Amino acid sequence: MIPEKSPKVVELEGRLLSFMEEHIYPNEARFYRESEDLGPWAVTPVVEELKVKAKAAGLWNLFLPASERGAGLSNLEYAPLCEIMGRTHMAPEVFNCSAPDTGNMEVLERYGSDADKERWLKPLLNGEIRSAFAMTEPAVASSDARNIESSIRREGDEYVINGRKWYTTGGTDPRCKIIIFMGKTDPEAETYKQQSMILVPMDTPGITVERALPVFGFYGVPDRAAEILFENVRVPASNMLLGEGRGFEIAQGRLGPGRIHHCMRLIGLAERTLEKMCARAEDRMAFGKLLSEQSVSRERIAQSRILIEQSRLLTLRAAHLMDTVGNKQARAEIAMIKVAVPDMACKVIDWAIQMFGGGGTGNDFGLAAAYATARLLRLADGPDEVHRDQIARLEFKRQAGRNDTGGVRNWAPAVSAMALGTAPRA
Amino acid sequence: MIPEKSPKVVELEGRLLSFMEEHIYPNEARFYRESEDLGPWAVTPVVEELKVKAKAAGLWNLFLPASERGAGLSNLEYAPLCEIMGRTHMAPEVFNCSAPDTGNMEVLERYGSDADKERWLKPLLNGEIRSAFAMTEPAVASSDARNIESSIRREGDEYVINGRKWYTTGGTDPRCKIIIFMGKTDPEAETYKQQSMILVPMDTPGITVERALPVFGFYGVPDRAAEILFENVRVPASNMLLGEGRGFEIAQGRLGPGRIHHCMRLIGLAERTLEKMCARAEDRMAFGKLLSEQSVSRERIAQSRILIEQSRLLTLRAAHLMDTVGNKQARAEIAMIKVAVPDMACKVIDWAIQMFGGGGTGNDFGLAAAYATARLLRLADGPDEVHRDQIARLEFKRQAGRNDTGGVRNWAPAVSAMALGTAPRA
Amino acid sequence: MIPEKSPKVVELEGRLLSFMEEHIYPNEARFYRESEDLGPWAVTPVVEELKVKAKAAGLWNLFLPASERGAGLSNLEYAPLCEIMGRTHMAPEVFNCSAPDTGNMEVLERYGSDADKERWLKPLLNGEIRSAFAMTEPAVASSDARNIESSIRREGDEYVINGRKWYTTGGTDPRCKIIIFMGKTDPEAETYKQQSMILVPMDTPGITVERALPVFGFYGVPDRAAEILFENVRVPASNMLLGEGRGFEIAQGRLGPGRIHHCMRLIGLAERTLEKMCARAEDRMAFGKLLSEQSVSRERIAQSRILIEQSRLLTLRAAHLMDTVGNKQARAEIAMIKVAVPDMACKVIDWAIQMFGGGGTGNDFGLAAAYATARLLRLADGPDEVHRDQIARLEFKRQAGRNDTGGVRNWAPAVSAMALGTAPRA
Amino acid sequence: MIPEKSPKVVELEGRLLSFMEEHIYPNEARFYRESEDLGPWAVTPVVEELKVKAKAAGLWNLFLPASERGAGLSNLEYAPLCEIMGRTHMAPEVFNCSAPDTGNMEVLERYGSDADKERWLKPLLNGEIRSAFAMTEPAVASSDARNIESSIRREGDEYVINGRKWYTTGGTDPRCKIIIFMGKTDPEAETYKQQSMILVPMDTPGITVERALPVFGFYGVPDRAAEILFENVRVPASNMLLGEGRGFEIAQGRLGPGRIHHCMRLIGLAERTLEKMCARAEDRMAFGKLLSEQSVSRERIAQSRILIEQSRLLTLRAAHLMDTVGNKQARAEIAMIKVAVPDMACKVIDWAIQMFGGGGTGNDFGLAAAYATARLLRLADGPDEVHRDQIARLEFKRQAGRNDTGGVRNWAPAVSAMALGTAPRA
Repeated sequence: MIPEKSPKVVELEGRLLSFMEEHIYPNEARFYRESEDLGPWAVTPVVEELKVKAKAAGLWNLFLPASERGAGLSNLEYAPLCEIMGRTHMAPEVFNCSAPDTGNMEVLERYGSDADKERWLKPLLNGEIRSAFAMTEPAVASSDARNIESSIRREGDEYVINGRKWYTTGGTDPRCKIIIFMGKTDPEAETYKQQSMILVPMDTPGITVERALPVFGFYGVPDRAAEILFENVRVPASNMLLGEGRGFEIAQGRLGPGRIHHCMRLIGLAERTLEKMCARAEDRMAFGKLLSEQSVSRERIAQSRILIEQSRLLTLRAAHLMDTVGNKQARAEIAMIKVAVPDMACKVIDWAIQMFGGGGTGNDFGLAAAYATARLLRLADGPDEVHRDQIARLEFKRQAGRNDTGGVRNWAPAVSAMALGTAPRA
Repeated sequence: MIPEKSPKVVELEGRLLSFMEEHIYPNEARFYRESEDLGPWAVTPVVEELKVKAKAAGLWNLFLPASERGAGLSNLEYAPLCEIMGRTHMAPEVFNCSAPDTGNMEVLERYGSDADKERWLKPLLNGEIRSAFAMTEPAVASSDARNIESSIRREGDEYVINGRKWYTTGGTDPRCKIIIFMGKTDPEAETYKQQSMILVPMDTPGITVERALPVFGFYGVPDRAAEILFENVRVPASNMLLGEGRGFEIAQGRLGPGRIHHCMRLIGLAERTLEKMCARAEDRMAFGKLLSEQSVSRERIAQSRILIEQSRLLTLRAAHLMDTVGNKQARAEIAMIKVAVPDMACKVIDWAIQMFGGGGTGNDFGLAAAYATARLLRLADGPDEVHRDQIARLEFKRQAGRNDTGGVRNWAPAVSAMALGTAPRA
Repeated sequence: MIPEKSPKVVELEGRLLSFMEEHIYPNEARFYRESEDLGPWAVTPVVEELKVKAKAAGLWNLFLPASERGAGLSNLEYAPLCEIMGRTHMAPEVFNCSAPDTGNMEVLERYGSDADKERWLKPLLNGEIRSAFAMTEPAVASSDARNIESSIRREGDEYVINGRKWYTTGGTDPRCKIIIFMGKTDPEAETYKQQSMILVPMDTPGITVERALPVFGFYGVPDRAAEILFENVRVPASNMLLGEGRGFEIAQGRLGPGRIHHCMRLIGLAERTLEKMCARAEDRMAFGKLLSEQSVSRERIAQSRILIEQSRLLTLRAAHLMDTVGNKQARAEIAMIKVAVPDMACKVIDWAIQMFGGGGTGNDFGLAAAYATARLLRLADGPDEVHRDQIARLEFKRQAGRNDTGGVRNWAPAVSAMALGTAPRA
Repeated sequence: MIPEKSPKVVELEGRLLSFMEEHIYPNEARFYRESEDLGPWAVTPVVEELKVKAKAAGLWNLFLPASERGAGLSNLEYAPLCEIMGRTHMAPEVFNCSAPDTGNMEVLERYGSDADKERWLKPLLNGEIRSAFAMTEPAVASSDARNIESSIRREGDEYVINGRKWYTTGGTDPRCKIIIFMGKTDPEAETYKQQSMILVPMDTPGITVERALPVFGFYGVPDRAAEILFENVRVPASNMLLGEGRGFEIAQGRLGPGRIHHCMRLIGLAERTLEKMCARAEDRMAFGKLLSEQSVSRERIAQSRILIEQSRLLTLRAAHLMDTVGNKQARAEIAMIKVAVPDMACKVIDWAIQMFGGGGTGNDFGLAAAYATARLLRLADGPDEVHRDQIARLEFKRQAGRNDTGGVRNWAPAVSAMALGTAPRA
């Protein structure tokens, strides 16, 4: 079901943990301070400094499976490493493994031309530039890609792009040089052939980054979302990815890895939150007893542990399926973790906030920001409801394929025979 | 159980609703913009402008019961008006009914000397100054007042105050001129006689407002909390409220009204959030149908309506008990609403966030800030766990007083007689 | 909102409580023993004995409002009395206030002819006979009355009835003499004019009571449900209630009182369960401490108290609305309690079961049977989902009627003005 | 983490599935009918008939790992097979894999003398006799084994046993010949050395099986619990298992396998319940649409699938740990599944009940009995609260062992440095 960690992963994990202790945790406070002082439109110097160290340490681009450009790790191998990075907001970017870049690099790797790879993938892999992903629109429920209203219109050798996007992750980063944009090339085509994805350099005329978007009051933690207006933005026809009408197909390919990376990181975040809960419980007295001795705290700690273990196993299982049967065949499992993991993380973090008292809602313990990250992920890359709907659809399909007599097909006829009421004792 | 609204209340309600429509809602965006632009240490001009209008309209100080200085409304009468104000962050202050001032004014009214009333209560009631309430400490679980570590030491005609407080509401407001401070005058006295409350003018030497404290990333919404250091702060002995060792008694008196006002406001906030949910549901298409036609949305709307109605009735009941049997006798009900109402509001707002998609986590729809307000109130003025503990204690006490045979006392002996197993059919 | 108890109610309550202590609680074990020994098709002698005493004590037919045949109590006045009866399965019938008879008597009172009243209502009010209510069908989702498939066909001076009903409450009682039957007289009529209700004497040829239906393994507790087959059952045309096509109208009139009575009883059942929890918590040691000293138990006791108080207030409010504006105008509130109260009772009882250990799942403490009663009521008289759907429908309607600027109508346009993002600090 | 199924298991699984289809499902109705007709004190002929077939098919004693007497399957290998058996109440006994026999056989295998094995284990493995496990006592919280009050007193060559036990599984079965009894040999010994386990033949004088104990109204489904009085029951000293004072040690050894078997079975039960939900949803119309098209049903189906997958993975992981590091080292994981799986099953079955309407609470669809089984398991073998307490204890221990700077130990000092408030902009 789920293979053990390979020696390569164990070795990497050891080095990653050392790096976290030596470089990441001691710099967390600095990261948050710089983030707050410099605001959402700036680069935090601490991250740039640490990127150099991480690259030198060979802890770089661990995310990219099935490519010689990456570290040669499968999704399953990457999972425990990604989880460690997820323990703190700063780490993923330090290791060049942060959203939306990892998903975008996957797109360029899988669907980009050689020229695209040279121009965009290479500097992204080098951590020299960053990227944005523009799919969501304020005016429609864009988790249903059919609703997308932005247009990509061919004119001669160019495409002309118009539309308003928001929650465009990466959009406030001054290092962001390239946007992967989703829009409709042909609103008259069949439903899943209307959309296309195209590369739009950030400096193309007609692009206005209108504002930074906060998440529960936090700007830029973690994904630097922006609202961006595209007005008659012109790009060469060669920027089209894979071909007109194939945007939906790319989205399906892109979102799987993006979703599982989010889940892996959230497991790390929850794990760390649980550590904070335990430390708090062993440190804080209320009504004459340590919180750690009060059953209501103990119950929440136990429940957190259970939820984390279940989430991790399901995520590893999904990763292993992606590696072995492919992202498409693993779509039920990806949808399941996309629902289960953010929900788990929200619960664990909420319990921690409660245990930290008023301070839990502030910035000193990192819990409010952690909650914002987890809560957003019940919506980002599709709200829970959309994923549950897909899981249900696949479940009905799966059931329809059964034919054992204990299952669905033969169960209904058995009902009346199963009637068990007591006959009148007349 | 709960009397109907009096004609006076109905009339005030009508005027208040008109004022909301004419002056509050049209200025909401301006309020949030000014708040964000000016930051937590400033006064938003829009509020000062509207205070003048509210005062002129006679919609002023509606909160203060049993005093000729207030509007002559009972807690029950105030409830529906307070609920309306709670619909938006800005309104309570406009009507001079915002925390922590209302609670502090109650303290001054009930326990202040004539001089205190002249110097502090009068300008507070006039909306000329604001106040802070300093009880919570970062180092201890101060919801258990016995843990408080700050000291108030008598030296001749003065008291010398030392301690570190945080979540001191009102503390970042430049108009804040007076702090009600809780500390220990005698750590050797019997448990509930150790604490005292004392008036500390904001400009007394030794006070350092160290920083503003955010709630889920929001500064100053709603209660402008600060961390404040008190180092050898000296005030005249006459600033002591009610007498040494009576701080616990005052806290009990103060916290009841403060808590119920918070609950009333949250009901208004939840009610408005439900309106937003309905509007969203009737406006948004997903997968070919309006959200309002999908049962999962309808369930949440129905459940929100149920939770709001139950919360409102329990809050009105608590208010009526405060009016008729007194705050102390109503303490079980006050504890119940303090648990039930923030929990209700968190649920309703969380559902709304989910229905608004990514935008629900930002500032455009006011939901993330509303969530921050509601979530904080599961901790402010005592975490849920403390209130539930008190409710349980009162419940055990109540049960112990029963003596009917159907109840606790005679129930246990009946157990074996109630045994209903089937005997062996040998 | 909710008037206080009248002196008449206080007096009745006192007598009812005395009767409970003197006659009901001491006979509970006997009732359960007789129920189990005699099975679902029998009458328990204890109930018949106590009915005589209750009648003599003037504690009889307290349920029937707005009729000189009842005790002259309004719904609101009846509520606290019904709650007391609901504390134990046996009591309602002892006081001639049990389902389905109360609902059926309301139907006969409101919609029956003088002859019907003489023949059926009178002996029912006297407790000489019992009745059944046949609406639900096994083959369709009959909570949507439009789905009902049973037919009532006019032939000359008679109606011919065919259909299969289940969960026909009262159907296993040997004293049951009359069935109120719902079926379709005209499947071609407009949707809500197809159904009719008709009186069917139990001894009419063509009726087969096929079996007793258990609820979680309990037969006859509380409502003696049966599956009944009607084959060419002929009754005089005069048995039609109110007229052909008016069944839906009667159902709406009948179900309101039936539902609120169920809720009142469940509140009593939950209240008693909470007493059991407290007694257990103060009696049981685990890991060196009484359960009553462990915070996890205290939390559940507190939460139970909160839920009960909220449920009771909402139920009283619904009762008062039924009394003042009528059952139809109170339909939102009736739907709300129908959802909220069984859910509350299930939660409280489930916590109690957990606190009683293995014994909680058996019969010694009455908790499993209480759970069965409460759980069934999330389905009986319409599943939660149907009621929530109705609440949502009414909420959308209510919102549509608003026109203040803080509400729905003018809220949407304000959105863009409320946008609060930080502009690029270029 | 979790190895794949071995070819041996795949082969057994195929044969087991065939047997289920050929022999089990077609006989389910008969099993329930016989159970109800014959009552709790009888043997259902259908089970005895099918046992012969199962034995002949080599589907027998699959549960016993690390013994040449069993089928040679590890816990992990047994899991998917046990899950299949758990799909229906009847199956485990047919395959000689039912509680409490499997746990008791494990005890005899691990701790019994050769004579014990010959006399009791052999006929148990042959399915000729059955056994009971007597641990729980009505008077104390016996999930804390220290509370046990029953006594086992040495007198010469005998032990004299006194005590009252209930929820003694297997106790109502006429084929039950042997009881494993837990009691105190030395109340003065150190805490975990007071208890012993001893073999007590069912026909020993002084044993009175007082009554059958129902679970939510069901007798004998699934575990045939009884209340048994032991009065001066004398057995040979050689019946003592492992030695005086080692009962706690045996209990720990016994309960691990017993608990995981329960969890495996519940996963099968939940899986089958989900199949029923899907079939119902695709069959039932309400308000003009199939339930399967309504989002509220789809959400519950999706959520059920997620919960089942997570439970199964955690259970398989626990099984694999038992196989590889031993039952003791796997105790955290065993405690986790003991909490998570019954909770999952209760939720899934409760949703199914709701989807089946009134019929969901009866016997026709098997859901109420399934709920009883699942709900009991939140209490049997220790209530959730005890297991969560243990998980918390192990978690605190685990945290204490950490020493990385991102974890507990070095986290607290970092707090003040992480302070992120905005300094006064003076």
